Amino acid sequence: MASWRENIRQVEPYVPGEQPKAADVIKLNTNENPYGPSPRVRALNLDRNLLRLYPDPTAATLVEKLAEYHHVKPEQVFVGVGSDDVLAMAFLTYFNSEKPILFPDITYSFYDVWAQLYKIPYERPALNHDFRLVKEDYYRENGGIVFPNPNAPTGIYEPLETIEEILRRNPDSIVIIDEAYIDFGGTSALTILDQYENLVVVRTFSKSRSMAGLRIGYAISSPELIAALNNVKYSYNSYTMNLPSIMLGAESIQDEEYFQSTVGKVVATREWFVKALDELGFTCLPSSANFVFATHSCIPAKEIFEAAKKRGIYVRYFDLPRIDHYLRISIGTDEDMRRFVEFLREYIGHASQE
Amino acid sequence: MASWRENIRQVEPYVPGEQPKAADVIKLNTNENPYGPSPRVRALNLDRNLLRLYPDPTAATLVEKLAEYHHVKPEQVFVGVGSDDVLAMAFLTYFNSEKPILFPDITYSFYDVWAQLYKIPYERPALNHDFRLVKEDYYRENGGIVFPNPNAPTGIYEPLETIEEILRRNPDSIVIIDEAYIDFGGTSALTILDQYENLVVVRTFSKSRSMAGLRIGYAISSPELIAALNNVKYSYNSYTMNLPSIMLGAESIQDEEYFQSTVGKVVATREWFVKALDELGFTCLPSSANFVFATHSCIPAKEIFEAAKKRGIYVRYFDLPRIDHYLRISIGTDEDMRRFVEFLREYIGHASQE
Repeated sequence: MASWRENIRQVEPYVPGEQPKAADVIKLNTNENPYGPSPRVRALNLDRNLLRLYPDPTAATLVEKLAEYHHVKPEQVFVGVGSDDVLAMAFLTYFNSEKPILFPDITYSFYDVWAQLYKIPYERPALNHDFRLVKEDYYRENGGIVFPNPNAPTGIYEPLETIEEILRRNPDSIVIIDEAYIDFGGTSALTILDQYENLVVVRTFSKSRSMAGLRIGYAISSPELIAALNNVKYSYNSYTMNLPSIMLGAESIQDEEYFQSTVGKVVATREWFVKALDELGFTCLPSSANFVFATHSCIPAKEIFEAAKKRGIYVRYFDLPRIDHYLRISIGTDEDMRRFVEFLREYIGHASQE
Repeated sequence: MASWRENIRQVEPYVPGEQPKAADVIKLNTNENPYGPSPRVRALNLDRNLLRLYPDPTAATLVEKLAEYHHVKPEQVFVGVGSDDVLAMAFLTYFNSEKPILFPDITYSFYDVWAQLYKIPYERPALNHDFRLVKEDYYRENGGIVFPNPNAPTGIYEPLETIEEILRRNPDSIVIIDEAYIDFGGTSALTILDQYENLVVVRTFSKSRSMAGLRIGYAISSPELIAALNNVKYSYNSYTMNLPSIMLGAESIQDEEYFQSTVGKVVATREWFVKALDELGFTCLPSSANFVFATHSCIPAKEIFEAAKKRGIYVRYFDLPRIDHYLRISIGTDEDMRRFVEFLREYIGHASQE
């Protein structure tokens, strides 16, 4: 065996989620927004002759619009290729300690992948029986803390007091709050940003802004922490954000009305859908996100998952300890969810008769 | 001082190159293509409603077109956010050895930045007096080898025999040939790919394909090495390529005629421009790229650089040992280069009279 093979970084091969290609499927498996992006995004004329030039490495147009929107300084905003890029860069930048970083046992599946990739030690305190964060588990020596709020795939939002208590007890750690789903429920940690210089809040355009296909994420923090992130980013790739991302992202931020209206529609759909699931014998965790995490009283989640797939309805099932009897169902249009409920009614009626 | 500061990765802050904003400047400082992308790229209708969905994580549409174009299998192609993303990912994936990797003392300025970012030891054998690679310097124990061909910022192309000799002497190392500029001159190492399973060739859409603004780069190698790169990529970010990059990139590859015609124009402009520089007392290194590296017999490069900038003409000057008396001048349109030559004629005439 040629010895160059020994120099290859070994990582657990990650298999991306199913992307069904048929046009008539109902896709409720990747938490996308059922509504298209803002009409301003759709209408903006991009001069493709400009593609011959490198994009602005600072993505200033987008950074400035985000700063304005969130009432912070441009030096407090970092943009990346989706929140995955922002988070991965944040792990690489902020978590250079021999002490383990901390994140929950049930959470976004990429945290342990990045920790392994960058050889960062980590520990995963367990959520309690109700899938709630046990804040006391984070009152110990660590190399950093990260968790989503609302959490994924549970959808549960932890009140700001919990976040603040964790921040207060960890003045020596950088604490990252991953707010991918915050627009669908809960108060953002951005409201307490001024008080904690070790707080980093991460956001994405992929959910509430209907732009998963463009890959835009961002972090907001103190100018000092954002500068450190930019230094690492510039050591990696000067130009991560392409021209369409910068221009269309900036356009999206300026359409607050459309944003509020589509987020409102998703939340309204979620509310009736949860009631409908309840009537069918499901228990849903309290969701503050654009998905629900639900378990049925008698039918195994995996069976429902597979039966739905056969009918062209894709939801998400995780074959993992503690959550293998749950389904994660993204909120689509009212029509999508009605068709899913119809399928469930029929399937559960049938299954109960057997 | 809060101890979280100790956990922040320290990197040399990289300052991106100047991006002048005025509309009437002549921009010859970042090796962009003076011609716009293919008319097929400009005309393609992208349905922006699709932006709500995640892009295909495998970027199959683009990967397949590239495989077809280069007569390799899709499993031999990896795509990323510009060749910087591809190269950075390749460093992280392939260079996990305690032994130093090797690259020339004068070369693309990101190699040492990535090595530092990922804590990879490295050594930089010096190019000879003519800025040529000394192949014997690469016949020693190492953790990997990387260099551009043609080299940057010299523009010098090393014949394929040199590459092959280095590959033959290094059966235990992964060898990356960075072919960002190969379309402007020289034979690609892709022609010997079948014979060396440790060879990785990296390419970009930013130069010959006029699409720096979209950020598309790719690597071609054996299925084994491409799989390793994909595993690391999926551990970092499932969706690095956004929808516009995938679709417009695939469109560009299908317009061979336009590609050949614009590359031909750049090469023709370079040829007369080199002669014009020669007549003005410059010495140009033999360029196989879309830029020339030139030094004047009596006027310091830095002075010319600054005087040109005052006249709205941006070229590149590196204040670095061995090359601080050279200018790197990107090839623009014939008109751009004529105006630059006019400026030089006037400036040099004036400087000589003093």
